[in-house]
Parts: sequence; structure tokens; C-alpha cells
Amino acid sequence: MDPFSLPIRVYLEDTDAGGVVFYANYLKFFERSRTELVRTQGFEMRRSLSDGVSFVVASLNINYRKSAYLDDELLIFTEVLEIKRSYFDVKQWVERVGEKGVKLVEAQVRVACVDLDSGRPQGMPKQLVSALQGVS
Amino acid sequence: MDPFSLPIRVYLEDTDAGGVVFYANYLKFFERSRTELVRTQGFEMRRSLSDGVSFVVASLNINYRKSAYLDDELLIFTEVLEIKRSYFDVKQWVERVGEKGVKLVEAQVRVACVDLDSGRPQGMPKQLVSALQGVS
Amino acid sequence: MDPFSLPIRVYLEDTDAGGVVFYANYLKFFERSRTELVRTQGFEMRRSLSDGVSFVVASLNINYRKSAYLDDELLIFTEVLEIKRSYFDVKQWVERVGEKGVKLVEAQVRVACVDLDSGRPQGMPKQLVSALQGVS
Amino acid sequence: MDPFSLPIRVYLEDTDAGGVVFYANYLKFFERSRTELVRTQGFEMRRSLSDGVSFVVASLNINYRKSAYLDDELLIFTEVLEIKRSYFDVKQWVERVGEKGVKLVEAQVRVACVDLDSGRPQGMPKQLVSALQGVS
Repeated sequence: MDPFSLPIRVYLEDTDAGGVVFYANYLKFFERSRTELVRTQGFEMRRSLSDGVSFVVASLNINYRKSAYLDDELLIFTEVLEIKRSYFDVKQWVERVGEKGVKLVEAQVRVACVDLDSGRPQGMPKQLVSALQGVS
Repeated sequence: MDPFSLPIRVYLEDTDAGGVVFYANYLKFFERSRTELVRTQGFEMRRSLSDGVSFVVASLNINYRKSAYLDDELLIFTEVLEIKRSYFDVKQWVERVGEKGVKLVEAQVRVACVDLDSGRPQGMPKQLVSALQGVS
Repeated sequence: MDPFSLPIRVYLEDTDAGGVVFYANYLKFFERSRTELVRTQGFEMRRSLSDGVSFVVASLNINYRKSAYLDDELLIFTEVLEIKRSYFDVKQWVERVGEKGVKLVEAQVRVACVDLDSGRPQGMPKQLVSALQGVS
Repeated sequence: MDPFSLPIRVYLEDTDAGGVVFYANYLKFFERSRTELVRTQGFEMRRSLSDGVSFVVASLNINYRKSAYLDDELLIFTEVLEIKRSYFDVKQWVERVGEKGVKLVEAQVRVACVDLDSGRPQGMPKQLVSALQGVS
């Protein structure tokens, strides 16, 4: 199965005075791609918040290889690596449209399920587990 | 002619601890919509920067009527009001998909053309004037 | 009485590929200055949220006169203009340290008090009214 | 020698609908702390850009242990680990004021020196090397 990808356009808000995408903003792109991945399987972030469940990134390893620029069309890929009781791991990367296989930025991300009030780890909603299994 | 609209999804990055879209972020949405409007007419922001021309917002009046929330699908409308030698005025507003005519946020924006180095006003590139005339 | 001012340093995150502070980011600076203004009077944003009260910007008129740049030291001024039952108006502006009286950006902002759940206008907490009166 | 720390206040702009600081925003805090660290040694980001030199994060490992909240006062620590010809490594972490030794977020970051136009690695400016040596 092909990995999930979300197309993203680079706007002025994403860039910095160095003329490239600011390094923190790739984390926004990754979050958008993860959100859309689970949405394709019928899972909505908002409903989980109203159920008192929140998802937080627990850890992240990221390599920045090449810069992205204003007006670039990017693809933000997300591949589910592992699904555990209270977290899941994904591999995510960025390619420029038309430059297949050239990873500009590459990351491995652990997303944990926590109680919205206490911040403590908790089991992932069954619906999310199904959503993730549907794409892994 | 129908006004131009750009569909936008609200992600976690756009919201704040009040549970709604943070007020500054609508300005990002408006900038994206203006950029896509002129792109439909063949005008790219990046090329103008490499030509030493930059576009800056000179003034902005904005009314926030209703909040947008996480996961909302929004339409960001842009309508060209007036085109002058060194600036143009647009009306921009936000609707939620499926709630036609209900303006969540509404703004009038003046975008000025300036020299990238000096920051001084300068005449707009002919290509941009044509682009704007094509949609007004 | 001198108007309240908050010193701000311009970081890479605040700038864009045009080499200047991105226009939406001044709204972040203004929000910081309003928050610190009321904090000097003992009012904390977080407590109001836990009381079910939120503050949202209802309208904003802003003029961008001159650009701010990376590494600039700015002062973000806030002056209370009027205090009503469910909203207050402030004048806010940006100066560069050492260039007293030169307003880079200038705005008038209406901040409304709303119920956190319903989003409906409600009377401002007495403590906030006192806080605002203490600086106007 | 005590590690360098920069005090940061958490504002509404930093938070998300989950009620905590959005995960990408810690990277902004880290960048501010690195910038102030070298500034204490007389090195300015803006001058390096005008010299055609840019600094980009090459890689980043980050662990998110506990959340930070609206109105929190944080300290963003930066410790230089290693200085090489074209990059340097730092350890960075976040503590809440008054909770000494409790690391909310912890990261190791590699910052590379690149040519502003080509994006290729290049030797770090001597002045930056001296600045970093002064704090390591």
C-alpha cells in the first residue's frame, strides 16, 4: 500500500528571513498530515477532545536535509510503524512535488494518548486503533 | 462573477487554549487566499521577491463575528475592490462550509507594492495588475 | 501616566521571506502586551479560562507604516481607551527602542468578554474592570 | 559554569485547543534561547544574514515529558556540547520557574552553517566560534 501523503503549499507565513521554511513549521505540516491520515479513516480530533482524550507528541527525531521555499508544493508523507496500547509511532517525510524520492525532511514521531485533564497516559480510543490499523 | 474562495481546514496549530482559532491566524488564512487568487492568474509571489519587489499589507480593518473551531472546513473569500498604481484593496471574509452567507470574520485589506530593499512604495508589476484585473 | 509598554525582541520565527516581521505576528505582540498590562494589575488569563470566561478580539483596525526586522528590539505600547460592560477598547502601537515617537505599526483593538462554552458576550469580571481602571 | 537560560512567558499564541503549549512552539523557544546565547557573546543573527551566511537546524531529537500551560513562566536552557568546523551541537531543555531540575521538554540540536544562496555547508564565522567557545 502506498504511504499516505498530504499536499501542502508553502506560504509566506511558513518562511523566515533566511528565505526558507522555518524549521519549527515542518512540525505543523507533520501534524496536519497525521490528522488527515486518521480522518481518512473516520477519526476526528475534535471529537476526541470532547471525549476528554488528547494526543500529544511524546518524542520526535528529525533530520533536515534540504530546504523548502516560498510557493513550493510539498507532499507530507505519513507511514504508521507501530501501534501500542497508549501510543503509536509514525515515520513522516517531506518531498517536493515532481521530485519523487528526494526527502527534504524526515522524522520519526511517537504520538501518545493522554487524559485531557490530568495529562496522564491512557489507552487509545478503539476507533483510533482501527483507523491506524486501516492504514498500516 | 463569483468571488474567489480558498478552502482551508482548521488544524491544532491554528487554535488556542480558548478552544478557537487564534485571532492572528485569520490573517494567515487571508494571505493564503490572496496568494492563491493571484496564482490563478499566473502570478507567483516568489518570482516577485527575486525581482526585488515585495508586497506588504498597509492597513487592515477586521471584524470577528463568530469563532471557528478545530477540524472546521472554512472558505476564505477574496474580492478585489480597487486597483491603484502602487496598491490594491480587497474585501476578504471567512465562511464555514455548508453555512453559506454567514461571515465568521470579515476584513478590508490594503496591499502595497514596495521595493524589497528600501521598503519604499513602487508601482505594481504589470503582470500583477493584469492578474488582479482578471478577477475584478 | 505613561502608557504601558512591553519590550519584545524580533526572532527568526517572527520574520518572513521578505526579510521583515510577518504582518500577522504584530497581532501576537499586541496580545502579549495586553496580557502583561492586565497582569501588572494582578489579572491572569489562565484563571479566567478556568472560570469559564474567555476574551476574544471583536474588531481591529491596524496601520502598518514601517517594517520591523530580525534582531530589532521593539516596544509594544498599550493604552486603555474605554471600558464598557462586556468589552474594552485599547490603542496599541509598536516603536523601535531608541526611536521614540516613531510608530511602526498602530492599531485600535476591541476586546470582548465571552462565555467560554457558548461564545456569547458577558459582563467582564470585576477584577478585570479594576485592573483596566488601574491603568487608564 | 551555569548553563545559559532564557526566561519565556507562555502566551495564548503558544497554546492549542488541547490547553497546552503546541509541540512545534518549543522549537521557537529553543531558537530564541540559542540566539540570545550567542548574542551575549556579541554575535547577531542579522549581521550573519547580511554576510551571506545562514544557520539552519540539521537535526533534532526531542522528548516531551510534561506539558507547559498558558501563563507559565519557563526557562529555556542551552548548553553547548560540541563545536565543529561547519556545525555545533547543543543540549536544550525547558523548566518551569520554581521547579528546578524538572525538565518538561529536552532536546539535542545540531545547528549547521550554510551559504545563504546555495544552502551548502560552510565553515562557521570565527566570531561565532569564539562566541560559542565563550559559553562552553
